[in-house]
Amino acid sequence: MQTMTQVGAIGALADGGVNRLAFTPADREARQQVRRWMVEAGMAVTVDAAGNIIGRYLGCDGLAPALATGSHLDTVPNAGIYDGTYGVLAGLEVVRTLGEQNRRLDHSIEVIVFADEERTMIGSKAISGKASTDPEFYQHPHHGAIQQSLQAIGGDWSKLGLAKRDPGSLAAFVELHVEQGPVLEATGCEIGLVTGIVGQRRYLITIEGSPSHAGTTPMDMRQDALVAAAQITLAVNQLGLDSTLPQGGDQVATVGAMALSPNVGNTIPGQVELTVDLRDLSNGCLDAMVSRLEQAAGAIAAATRTHIALKPQLQNDPVPVSSHIYNTVAQVCQHLRLSARQLPSRASHDAQNIASVTDMGMIFVPSQGGISHAETEYTTAEHCIQGANVLLHTLLKLDQHYRCPHILHKRNKTQPTVP
Amino acid sequence: MQTMTQVGAIGALADGGVNRLAFTPADREARQQVRRWMVEAGMAVTVDAAGNIIGRYLGCDGLAPALATGSHLDTVPNAGIYDGTYGVLAGLEVVRTLGEQNRRLDHSIEVIVFADEERTMIGSKAISGKASTDPEFYQHPHHGAIQQSLQAIGGDWSKLGLAKRDPGSLAAFVELHVEQGPVLEATGCEIGLVTGIVGQRRYLITIEGSPSHAGTTPMDMRQDALVAAAQITLAVNQLGLDSTLPQGGDQVATVGAMALSPNVGNTIPGQVELTVDLRDLSNGCLDAMVSRLEQAAGAIAAATRTHIALKPQLQNDPVPVSSHIYNTVAQVCQHLRLSARQLPSRASHDAQNIASVTDMGMIFVPSQGGISHAETEYTTAEHCIQGANVLLHTLLKLDQHYRCPHILHKRNKTQPTVP
Repeated sequence: MQTMTQVGAIGALADGGVNRLAFTPADREARQQVRRWMVEAGMAVTVDAAGNIIGRYLGCDGLAPALATGSHLDTVPNAGIYDGTYGVLAGLEVVRTLGEQNRRLDHSIEVIVFADEERTMIGSKAISGKASTDPEFYQHPHHGAIQQSLQAIGGDWSKLGLAKRDPGSLAAFVELHVEQGPVLEATGCEIGLVTGIVGQRRYLITIEGSPSHAGTTPMDMRQDALVAAAQITLAVNQLGLDSTLPQGGDQVATVGAMALSPNVGNTIPGQVELTVDLRDLSNGCLDAMVSRLEQAAGAIAAATRTHIALKPQLQNDPVPVSSHIYNTVAQVCQHLRLSARQLPSRASHDAQNIASVTDMGMIFVPSQGGISHAETEYTTAEHCIQGANVLLHTLLKLDQHYRCPHILHKRNKTQPTVP
Repeated sequence: MQTMTQVGAIGALADGGVNRLAFTPADREARQQVRRWMVEAGMAVTVDAAGNIIGRYLGCDGLAPALATGSHLDTVPNAGIYDGTYGVLAGLEVVRTLGEQNRRLDHSIEVIVFADEERTMIGSKAISGKASTDPEFYQHPHHGAIQQSLQAIGGDWSKLGLAKRDPGSLAAFVELHVEQGPVLEATGCEIGLVTGIVGQRRYLITIEGSPSHAGTTPMDMRQDALVAAAQITLAVNQLGLDSTLPQGGDQVATVGAMALSPNVGNTIPGQVELTVDLRDLSNGCLDAMVSRLEQAAGAIAAATRTHIALKPQLQNDPVPVSSHIYNTVAQVCQHLRLSARQLPSRASHDAQNIASVTDMGMIFVPSQGGISHAETEYTTAEHCIQGANVLLHTLLKLDQHYRCPHILHKRNKTQPTVP
C-alpha cells in the first residue's frame, strides 16, 4: 500500500486522481521508480524494444519458462491510482515477499510493466507479435512520433519485432486488476474469477430521414430519423437483456453516442448517427446479436420510412482464459477463505494480447461503486492486499503445475546465486 | 408574378433563394420597392411606429373600418422567395386589379407589410398592443438596438404604443400565405382553408442517469439516460398519433433536439436533454398531451431508474379563425371551381396577432414538397395566381358582409376622389 501511495503521487491531480499518460514525464518517472524497486527486490531488469519493463526474479531452473504477471503504469487523463498500477505493484510485492522469505520458485517470475496500455497497447501487442508497424497508427495530437516516444522510455522502434516473445519463454501469465465495474461490490465478493475477456463488435449506424418542419408536417407524412434512432436504441438495449441468445447471458449492448441533424427543436430530425457497442465472451452470441440488430434495423427502416446503414467499426474476438489458471485461482480463494465469483472482463487488458503467447488468467478485486477511469476510482486496502495474496498463492501453485520434467530431479538442490 | 420575381431579386442568393433579414439593407430595399408600387396603384401609404407599412386603397365610405390583408417581406437567413412576400404582393395585386377596373369597394382595403415577422413579430404584435416594450427582448447579435432598427425602416420606438389599432378601425384581416407543409400538394388541393393557428407547448426534458462503463456495467445495474430518452421520444411520437385525445386528430408532437453526456461510444449515457414540441388547435388537446407526457415520464423514470424533469419553455394558445371568413373562402373556392381542403396552420403568422383586434382568416396555397425556410421553397405560378384570385373574391364578399348600415344609403353615389 505504501508503493501504491508513492506511485499515485506521480502525476497526481488536486482531487486525488492522477494524470499519467503514456510516454509523458510522469509516466517515465513512475517507470523509473518501479525499476528501482525491482532492482532492490533482487530482480534483473530489462526494457524490451516496445518499452516494456521486464523484471525477472530468477527461479531455481534458469532454463524453465517464466511465470509472468504485471500490468501497466500509464493512465487515462483523469484517472484513479488503481487501474494498471495495482497489478504491477502487486507483482512486485509477490517478489518482495518471496525475497523476504529467501525463497525462490522453480520458475523465474517476471513482473512486466506493459507500455501504453490505455491507448495503443503497443507493449503487450509487441510481445504477441501483433503490434502495428505503421507509425501513423500511433499518431496522437498530444504525443510526438512513436519513434521518439519509445526512445524516451528505453525502447527502440527500429527493433520492435524483437519484443515478440517465444511461447517457450513464458509458462503462464496472470494479470491482477481492479474490476472497473460494480459486480463484485454489488454481490459482496472479494475476488473475481475472470472467465475470459469479452469480444467486441462496434458499429456506427446512420439513419437518413427527412428534415421537415415540426409544425407543418403531419404525423403520417414524417420520416423522423430520431424516432427510428429511438427504436434502434431500445432494440440494442433489448439485445443486452435477451436471455434467448445462443451462449448468451453475460452479454452487454450499449448505444453510447448519438448525433442529430439539424438538432433544433422545431425541425423533425433528418439524420441521426449513433454508436452500437456489443460485448460478450462468445463469438456465437456476438454473431447472433449482430444478426438480430440487422433484422431490427431493416424492420425499423421500413416502419419509419427511413434509410438505415450499419457500418462495422471494430471486431475483437473474445479471449478465453486458461481453465487451469481459472481453477487454480478458485482453489486459492477457497484455501484463503475469500469469497469469489466468476465474471467476464468486459474491458480490455494487456492479458488479452499475452493470451496468444501463453496460458492466461486474470484476477479481479472490487472497485468501489464500479467506478474507473475517474479520480474517484477506489479499492480498499483490504481488497488490494487480498488480491496480492491470491496472486502470490496462484503463482506458487502454478509453479508446481508447470514444473518441467528436467526440474524434477533438481528440486532438492541448493538455490542458485542471484546474478 | 413579375413583382414576385423583382422582390425575389432583392437579397438574392446564388442558388435561387433569398436572405432578407428584417431591418437589413435588403429588407429596406424591398420595402421601398413595395411602397412605390403601392403609390402607383393609387394607395395612400403610411408607416406606423412599429415599422409596419400600411397601404390604403380608399373605399366609398371613408368612415367604414378597413378590410385588411398583407404579410411580411423579411425572411430567415436562407429563405425562399414565397414565404411572406407572396401575401404582400397578392394584396397589392388585388388592389391593382380593382384599380384597373376603376373599381372601389365600400370598405377601404389595407395592404399591410408587417415588420420583422420572422424573429420578433414586432409589427403585428404592436398592432395588437402586445409588443414587448423591453428593448432587451429584441436584442440579437446580428442587429443593432431596436430603436435604431425601427428608425431605419421609418418606425419610432418611443411611440410604439401608437401602432396599436382600434378594433373599430379594422373590419377583418385575411392573410394569404404559402402552406410551408406538404398537405395540399399531397392531397392534390389548390387552396387550403385554414381552420386556425395551432397553440404550442414546448418543454425541455432533462434525464439524469449514471454514466458508467459500457463494457463493465452489467445490463441490470445500469441507469441509462439514453434508454429513458428513447422511450420518451417514442411516447412523444405516440402522442402525435393518438386518436383518443380529446378534441385531437390534427395534433403533432416532436422531439427535435437531443444532447447526450458524455456522448462517447463506450460509456453509458449519464445525462440526456431533449426538446418536446406539441401543437394543436385546441387547448384541451394540448392539456391532455402534456398530462399524458408527464405520466409517461414518471413511468419511464421508474422503469429505467433515472430522474426525469420537465421544464416548460413556451406556451402559446391556439388562435381560431373567424368562421364567417372561413366559410367565405370556402364559398369562393366553390365558385371559382378550385379544389380546397381544411387544414390548421401549424406555423406562426402575423395573422395570429391581428386576431385579437378583428376577425381573422387565412388562405394557403401549396408548397412544393412541403419545403419552406429553404432556398428550394417553391409554389407554381398557377397556384400563386389562384390564391390571389381567392383573396380578391374573398375581400369582395367580405365587403358585402361587413357593410355598415350608414353605407347602405350611400351605395349609389359616385366614387370618391383619391386624395
